[in-house]
Amino acid sequence: MARPVTLFTGQWADLTLETVAEKASAWGFDGLELACWGDHFEVDKALDDDAYLQSRWDILNKYGLKCFAISNHLVGQCVCDNIDARHKDILPKRIWGDGEPEGVRQRAAEEIQNTARAAKRFGVDVVNGFTGSSVWGAFYFFPPTTQAYVQAGYDDFAARWLPILDVYREEGVKFALEVHPTEIAYDLITSQRALDALSGHVSFGFNFDPSHLIHQFIDPVEFIDAFGDRIFHVHVKDSRLQLTGRSSILASHLDFGDSRRGWDFVSPGRGDVRWDPIIRALNRIGYDGPLSIEWEDSGMDREYGAPEALAMVRRQDFRPSEVAFDAAFSSD
Amino acid sequence: MARPVTLFTGQWADLTLETVAEKASAWGFDGLELACWGDHFEVDKALDDDAYLQSRWDILNKYGLKCFAISNHLVGQCVCDNIDARHKDILPKRIWGDGEPEGVRQRAAEEIQNTARAAKRFGVDVVNGFTGSSVWGAFYFFPPTTQAYVQAGYDDFAARWLPILDVYREEGVKFALEVHPTEIAYDLITSQRALDALSGHVSFGFNFDPSHLIHQFIDPVEFIDAFGDRIFHVHVKDSRLQLTGRSSILASHLDFGDSRRGWDFVSPGRGDVRWDPIIRALNRIGYDGPLSIEWEDSGMDREYGAPEALAMVRRQDFRPSEVAFDAAFSSD
Amino acid sequence: MARPVTLFTGQWADLTLETVAEKASAWGFDGLELACWGDHFEVDKALDDDAYLQSRWDILNKYGLKCFAISNHLVGQCVCDNIDARHKDILPKRIWGDGEPEGVRQRAAEEIQNTARAAKRFGVDVVNGFTGSSVWGAFYFFPPTTQAYVQAGYDDFAARWLPILDVYREEGVKFALEVHPTEIAYDLITSQRALDALSGHVSFGFNFDPSHLIHQFIDPVEFIDAFGDRIFHVHVKDSRLQLTGRSSILASHLDFGDSRRGWDFVSPGRGDVRWDPIIRALNRIGYDGPLSIEWEDSGMDREYGAPEALAMVRRQDFRPSEVAFDAAFSSD
Amino acid sequence: MARPVTLFTGQWADLTLETVAEKASAWGFDGLELACWGDHFEVDKALDDDAYLQSRWDILNKYGLKCFAISNHLVGQCVCDNIDARHKDILPKRIWGDGEPEGVRQRAAEEIQNTARAAKRFGVDVVNGFTGSSVWGAFYFFPPTTQAYVQAGYDDFAARWLPILDVYREEGVKFALEVHPTEIAYDLITSQRALDALSGHVSFGFNFDPSHLIHQFIDPVEFIDAFGDRIFHVHVKDSRLQLTGRSSILASHLDFGDSRRGWDFVSPGRGDVRWDPIIRALNRIGYDGPLSIEWEDSGMDREYGAPEALAMVRRQDFRPSEVAFDAAFSSD
Amino acid sequence: MARPVTLFTGQWADLTLETVAEKASAWGFDGLELACWGDHFEVDKALDDDAYLQSRWDILNKYGLKCFAISNHLVGQCVCDNIDARHKDILPKRIWGDGEPEGVRQRAAEEIQNTARAAKRFGVDVVNGFTGSSVWGAFYFFPPTTQAYVQAGYDDFAARWLPILDVYREEGVKFALEVHPTEIAYDLITSQRALDALSGHVSFGFNFDPSHLIHQFIDPVEFIDAFGDRIFHVHVKDSRLQLTGRSSILASHLDFGDSRRGWDFVSPGRGDVRWDPIIRALNRIGYDGPLSIEWEDSGMDREYGAPEALAMVRRQDFRPSEVAFDAAFSSD
Amino acid sequence: MARPVTLFTGQWADLTLETVAEKASAWGFDGLELACWGDHFEVDKALDDDAYLQSRWDILNKYGLKCFAISNHLVGQCVCDNIDARHKDILPKRIWGDGEPEGVRQRAAEEIQNTARAAKRFGVDVVNGFTGSSVWGAFYFFPPTTQAYVQAGYDDFAARWLPILDVYREEGVKFALEVHPTEIAYDLITSQRALDALSGHVSFGFNFDPSHLIHQFIDPVEFIDAFGDRIFHVHVKDSRLQLTGRSSILASHLDFGDSRRGWDFVSPGRGDVRWDPIIRALNRIGYDGPLSIEWEDSGMDREYGAPEALAMVRRQDFRPSEVAFDAAFSSD
Repeated sequence: MARPVTLFTGQWADLTLETVAEKASAWGFDGLELACWGDHFEVDKALDDDAYLQSRWDILNKYGLKCFAISNHLVGQCVCDNIDARHKDILPKRIWGDGEPEGVRQRAAEEIQNTARAAKRFGVDVVNGFTGSSVWGAFYFFPPTTQAYVQAGYDDFAARWLPILDVYREEGVKFALEVHPTEIAYDLITSQRALDALSGHVSFGFNFDPSHLIHQFIDPVEFIDAFGDRIFHVHVKDSRLQLTGRSSILASHLDFGDSRRGWDFVSPGRGDVRWDPIIRALNRIGYDGPLSIEWEDSGMDREYGAPEALAMVRRQDFRPSEVAFDAAFSSD
Repeated sequence: MARPVTLFTGQWADLTLETVAEKASAWGFDGLELACWGDHFEVDKALDDDAYLQSRWDILNKYGLKCFAISNHLVGQCVCDNIDARHKDILPKRIWGDGEPEGVRQRAAEEIQNTARAAKRFGVDVVNGFTGSSVWGAFYFFPPTTQAYVQAGYDDFAARWLPILDVYREEGVKFALEVHPTEIAYDLITSQRALDALSGHVSFGFNFDPSHLIHQFIDPVEFIDAFGDRIFHVHVKDSRLQLTGRSSILASHLDFGDSRRGWDFVSPGRGDVRWDPIIRALNRIGYDGPLSIEWEDSGMDREYGAPEALAMVRRQDFRPSEVAFDAAFSSD
Repeated sequence: MARPVTLFTGQWADLTLETVAEKASAWGFDGLELACWGDHFEVDKALDDDAYLQSRWDILNKYGLKCFAISNHLVGQCVCDNIDARHKDILPKRIWGDGEPEGVRQRAAEEIQNTARAAKRFGVDVVNGFTGSSVWGAFYFFPPTTQAYVQAGYDDFAARWLPILDVYREEGVKFALEVHPTEIAYDLITSQRALDALSGHVSFGFNFDPSHLIHQFIDPVEFIDAFGDRIFHVHVKDSRLQLTGRSSILASHLDFGDSRRGWDFVSPGRGDVRWDPIIRALNRIGYDGPLSIEWEDSGMDREYGAPEALAMVRRQDFRPSEVAFDAAFSSD
Repeated sequence: MARPVTLFTGQWADLTLETVAEKASAWGFDGLELACWGDHFEVDKALDDDAYLQSRWDILNKYGLKCFAISNHLVGQCVCDNIDARHKDILPKRIWGDGEPEGVRQRAAEEIQNTARAAKRFGVDVVNGFTGSSVWGAFYFFPPTTQAYVQAGYDDFAARWLPILDVYREEGVKFALEVHPTEIAYDLITSQRALDALSGHVSFGFNFDPSHLIHQFIDPVEFIDAFGDRIFHVHVKDSRLQLTGRSSILASHLDFGDSRRGWDFVSPGRGDVRWDPIIRALNRIGYDGPLSIEWEDSGMDREYGAPEALAMVRRQDFRPSEVAFDAAFSSD
Repeated sequence: MARPVTLFTGQWADLTLETVAEKASAWGFDGLELACWGDHFEVDKALDDDAYLQSRWDILNKYGLKCFAISNHLVGQCVCDNIDARHKDILPKRIWGDGEPEGVRQRAAEEIQNTARAAKRFGVDVVNGFTGSSVWGAFYFFPPTTQAYVQAGYDDFAARWLPILDVYREEGVKFALEVHPTEIAYDLITSQRALDALSGHVSFGFNFDPSHLIHQFIDPVEFIDAFGDRIFHVHVKDSRLQLTGRSSILASHLDFGDSRRGWDFVSPGRGDVRWDPIIRALNRIGYDGPLSIEWEDSGMDREYGAPEALAMVRRQDFRPSEVAFDAAFSSD
Repeated sequence: MARPVTLFTGQWADLTLETVAEKASAWGFDGLELACWGDHFEVDKALDDDAYLQSRWDILNKYGLKCFAISNHLVGQCVCDNIDARHKDILPKRIWGDGEPEGVRQRAAEEIQNTARAAKRFGVDVVNGFTGSSVWGAFYFFPPTTQAYVQAGYDDFAARWLPILDVYREEGVKFALEVHPTEIAYDLITSQRALDALSGHVSFGFNFDPSHLIHQFIDPVEFIDAFGDRIFHVHVKDSRLQLTGRSSILASHLDFGDSRRGWDFVSPGRGDVRWDPIIRALNRIGYDGPLSIEWEDSGMDREYGAPEALAMVRRQDFRPSEVAFDAAFSSD
């Protein structure tokens, strides 16, 4: 379909946007998916300062790059989470504040609303991100966990996100949750449950990313077939099982990149994701947005890996058939 | 080895001990592993009341049953856990108290010390149980999680359990952690890390239970070979993968028994545990304690399943060889 | 659930009903599923002759056997099929007549209506059987096959069976199609298509038989979960893959029992059907009818195999749980 | 071996030969395998009209393309088939005539003889094609199917094809049946049976095409090893299993390209065919004819896929070794 | 087929024949396959001393046991082997003599001839055993190994065994080589090569034992189908893969029973041999001799395992079908 | 890591060094690993003749090639082996001499010492090679084989190699055994046993070559993780399983390249070795030496294969990551 291929800048936020843009352009990317951290896309400035917005486009334009979506995973995570010390490291000080959990959650919610407004002003209509979850940590049902206990987490999610999503609807922007462990939705069942909790709010959908499904043993194609009309964005990211009989699929509290983990992220094309059936499924649902490479591989130099991943996507992103073969056999 | 086969009473605590004993005896069990909940084995009474202790033995003796271990998973869980509403349901009121987390944890720690004392008085030298963990919920490393953050959880574990274990050492009783998700140790890596945190305290070891390893894709034999000298007790419990490409190995916040889960517990012999290699491994390390059936299968009547499981264990618990085959070929 | 276990007499129709009943009773079966061929259950006599009906019950009663269903696969097959020489061998002369295809089909349809009436008079409310299909032979889409061509077959099916099924409704009897290659429904997709063609006629459902799904690589549990409310009867039959890289899953026009086939029927318990998950699924949908062994294994003496299969079913047909395990952990 | 790589024009017959030739040449193909439908190669004109024959070569020569074989699958299919409405769409009117089955079959047989004569005149010595089969539809042995019934189909095949093949022998042309479900030969067993039915007629052999074996679970290498001296031509075509536990290997009467099918054709290199062992096997039997890409993938634009497939074949078609490694180790 | 089940006494030769007979009889065996070592069956005495022969039968008869074959693996091994120190331990002194290799081989050959004579006198017509091989150790082709080098080993085998086999033919006794690594034949290819080297001598065939094929990844059924008319005897023995990614299929020069080996022998029924297809294959070739359990499992008490294995064989040794199912469907 | 990629000349020794160098340079190799046979690197000349040494470098320099290691597998094999006729073909006459085994072994040992001296003079510090083994042929423990028997082989290895290795230490050269069946070390267990026999001599380590591990079912990554500090050199060579149920993993005494073998060597990238995890493991241990392609594929033209393999290695040899991803997420 000749979909545009973009690079998600989240893993490159230690570099300036200009540096990332220069690299991505040289490698041949069509655009960037801007992370709302580092200096790549700052929501507060974007709301207040037209010049700031223009400066982002100036950089993109200078390198011939497009932008279809911005992403605010880190703040989104804090909307529903039980806040702990780790959240401090991923939030700007103005949102962390004194760290009192409910205050953090409310400021994060406000920022996610502002992210929609900033996206609108910037001229993109998709915000990717996370939602957090107050019940993620209870996924293993011990101590014995009732459905009422779990449902309270989904109700909390709805209570916090419905007002946010109404802002998105007003702005004509969609929020695309990256389905992922630690989020309110991490598989098919919980994605449906999240949708149900929101009564199917029109502004809520998914950033499809197969790397988070592979290590759960979910076929990514099943996700696309189940939620085709809610897939607002696509991440190209890969992961790989490393099961030896001694490693755990739960990863043993080991760092990414530790070879003793039961799975890990790897450069797209080197993992267990089968891309061809995914492209077919995306063709099937008519997805024509960007394929955005979220490059993460703790065992590979990212500047080696990003162009390799781009080449892989270009090889895979084929157009669907426009003829029926039977016609060729006809005697007419 | 003709090891004794016992029934763990934890899943039968809605019945009186006498009822459970009568059933287990009729089915042919050799003994019971008493749960420290329901009326089966009450730690507070056991410490205060010789008549209570005798009453437990009277029941056991009446039905010709032995006892090699008592188990206090529920209270143990609360020693290190971040306490939430679910813990209230598994604790006696005297331990839950006002529910203030640190108070709950300290009362739980004290109860676990008392459990050692009660075990000693009762005449058994193994207490099985859980430890809880303050960092279990952070097993998926997002928000980004440092090893320092994780290690703090292990340090907290050591700080809380070393004093407990010193009581165990004094009493000549061993504490056997059932390696299990939600605990400080749930696989090979974390079991070693827990041991290291305790500097290998002699009173700390494991209640080997393969059902918790199977759905992590760990070969239970690897656990036995790695920790042979720390296996103080053995649970016979089974689990089964139910991976369809749509189900998640993380189980989707679904109840046990829901067929959409990616795995579930099933009656021993009906799951993915291969028992023959486990028996060989137990023979290899010289384990001669009980094989204690922890029967849990949300899809089967427990009174149908328990005797079936017992028969399975009897078929599997073979003696190792005492001759070398080469001797038979000798020309001498 | 302690479901009754019956023996389907179709593969024993070279023996008299009395002989089969005597054997089945001796082996411990609870009842028979009577085939409408041989002398086991003759539809024409059953309609005309009360004494004949009584004679069937007399035999059953003599051997302490029950009957829950009769089966008329052979005549049913001829309702929709493109008739060829093979059909002559499976039909009574009065139905075959001169063999002119449309006449055969119409007489077969009438006989299947009469089978409902006979069942009612006999006192059972399920008739198992086949439907035939005018488009089965076109399952491989060459010459190029349009959906219009296929749909014509489903329309023909509906046209022929709706009047039949109305008779079933009137009689209070259900028709249970054994989903099977060569029939209008042979997998999940075509079962739904058949139901749709009939607009979900209440008297039409399925005789679940996993042996016909295994060699199509369908998980039988998926069928149960998809059509739980339409499963009117269950066959216990088994099949096994025999794939060597040289054999074909299409079986090479070789006889059953030829080891060069890519799959074959085998005695229940010796094939690739996993019975435990099927029993769980049947428990889930609340099926409480008979488990009827259709014994077919071209490599085994049937009198060796039938009691072995019965013992297998008795071991597998467990009751579901009636307690929640969490209750046992409660501190209350 | 640097075998020539050709494109089979059958799936491109909606385009003129000139258009196909231009495209194939631009992509780098060495030649075309001409379909006897569309305007690509018309048997009647080829027999009557030298200028027509020359016009075909003129097009080929203009684009630097070779031709090693022509193919007449559609007419060949009608020689033995039970004729139904679908055959009308694949036949020229002069062969379909009034559609009376036996007349169709006889005219098809005559056309296949003429195809040999046309090939000779055209200067190629291989005609690929299908044979049809009167017993294909009975591959599943219900209604019970005797070997006599099946053998009658093979006898019919021999009776119809032996006279045809004698013409091929006279003309010095070989007929290469594409082994394929719906044909008299579709796997190893039936290929041998077809050969036996023809008493091994020297002019009869096979167009090896692994895509039709993969979904039967046959290792294509086994076919090459079994019939090496009868492989007259090779198709490069690919297929893929899509088994989910809900899909059927029999494909559910669903169209090619429907993701619910249990298997489908895909662009060569994207399916389950392993090409490296096939090239080794072709090297082993000394096959030095063309590798002819039959491109069919209902989910991919054919103009994207054909050059990709060509590149794949070029990468795979390696030369065998001409040295023995031991020589390099010699001390001489 | 209700074949007799015997116990091979080779692994019990540290016990007297009387002791073994008493045990085997108590466990329910039908007979013994006597090893020609220990005191079970001494060839020299058997040739010289009628009373000795009678004493063997007296013991067998006393315990109601039959005998169908004797076995002389240890001496047979020395006929072709490159003799080293290990052979001394498996030979009587009279055969080992001074240990000069060629003398050992010749005395072993003479003893194997005598074994035929002793078998005849004893009244059995099958001698099981090994042949040894001068080229076994060169199975891995480094240093570079020519087919001439290998063939010299097969020629040596033929030169040594043809005279032996002529004695077998004269005596009306068959020699059944247990196909096994370390022997001249250890798989399908080498079994055929051995037969070819002997020009198919009528007295040479095989003692089928699947345990030696499993760890070579050979399907035992393939062996039966390939050499059905040469299978003179059957061993029931089992083996199991223990591949962990760290263990080697070549077993690392580790003792049997060491869990670090890549494979090991286990009690029949506990390994990777699938017995049902083997029984079907034996039924197919019409084998009606004994199923002789060669019990070897370094991790299990042999007195626990032997009766378990016997029960397994009894469950598996079913009769083939004597009816065709189609008959039951006939309308006649 | 941009490791240099070299070509091992051992399989090209039928060509002159100049010819090999010219080809390798044209294909883009960075260097050569010189075999000590053919005219590539002659140890005796290298010790005696400075001009000879210079001539080797002249050729290398002319083609811009580096050299990091020389290899003397053939002579090394004869240090411990039981010498037979095959060894004559791999030795220079001056070492074979009269072929008396002990004399051959001693002359081989001396030559291997000289190889260290020659390497030093040549300016490389790694000698790759084989060791031979007196007990390799006894890997299958029949006749019954004691650990004492095996250990004698390891003691013999130590006795012969410790003096050799002392020379290596003196010269500052390392000996890298290519772990390989037929050698004293062929898997993880025996590699450790060999190291133990040498008391961990500092000059002894391994030439890691995954192709010899694959057909033993060993994960090559496990070898790297176990012996990281002893990996002195790396061979890039590939092998593939060819298991059909009829082939043997022991390869049936068939030549390399025979398709009936259970495994075979194939051009790197076409076998079962997974290179990506190996590169990660080599990065993990910090290996920065050459990746040396040992090209061997009996079914492919070597001049086709060598550049293909080089391209594969270039694609795989990626640099490890130098940033932590968490840094990019930081809010600082």
